Amino acid sequence: MTTSNAADGDVDPAVREELTRLRDSIDNIDAAVIYMLAERFKCTQQVGRLKAEHRLPPADPAREARQIARLRALAGDARLDPAFAEKFLNFIVAEVIRHHERIADDAANGATPSANRSRSFSAGE
Amino acid sequence: MTTSNAADGDVDPAVREELTRLRDSIDNIDAAVIYMLAERFKCTQQVGRLKAEHRLPPADPAREARQIARLRALAGDARLDPAFAEKFLNFIVAEVIRHHERIADDAANGATPSANRSRSFSAGE
Repeated sequence: MTTSNAADGDVDPAVREELTRLRDSIDNIDAAVIYMLAERFKCTQQVGRLKAEHRLPPADPAREARQIARLRALAGDARLDPAFAEKFLNFIVAEVIRHHERIADDAANGATPSANRSRSFSAGE
Repeated sequence: MTTSNAADGDVDPAVREELTRLRDSIDNIDAAVIYMLAERFKCTQQVGRLKAEHRLPPADPAREARQIARLRALAGDARLDPAFAEKFLNFIVAEVIRHHERIADDAANGATPSANRSRSFSAGE
């Protein structure tokens, strides 16, 4: 499913075609990113379980600092604003924390007993 | 460059290896996503230029509604919270708006004269 068949009114067909081409690329990229992020959340959930099972320290500030530095460098390579890469990591971390909180809430209700230490985990992993 | 060589103290080597494996996957995914987003921003910048050059209407609420519905459906397929997909689009849109504002500021300073109508563009594209 693409979402680029917009009613663009009386636009030059060549321009509309170019707009459709660009929007199709945007739609493809968005789909790829959503599926990549689904894989990323699977990884962070596994990290959360591993840490809970083996009583590893929840936060790892050194790892987080390396992640931020690395993403800023990658953004530079990709000609993106490095500040954007840091914001992106923060955005993802907020979602991981939300996942962990949900797991902790489930644990409080007796659903997944080993996961309730995950609230303060190093969420970027 | 990966960032998973954390000093995890006296952790079972098998556990540390598993943690490293997961963090390497997270690092790979983050790199992929950063590069995908760099491509996405290239597309939105082209859309911005196209709209400015051909005096197309800046916003396209129908396109935006389709994008949100599609990303929510994709998130469902990927077993992600559909609300996350919508938040993700909003996060990206905020960055695109920031790009457009920077282009508009440049235009105000005489750098890129055709781009100063882009401030109110449909930023998700």
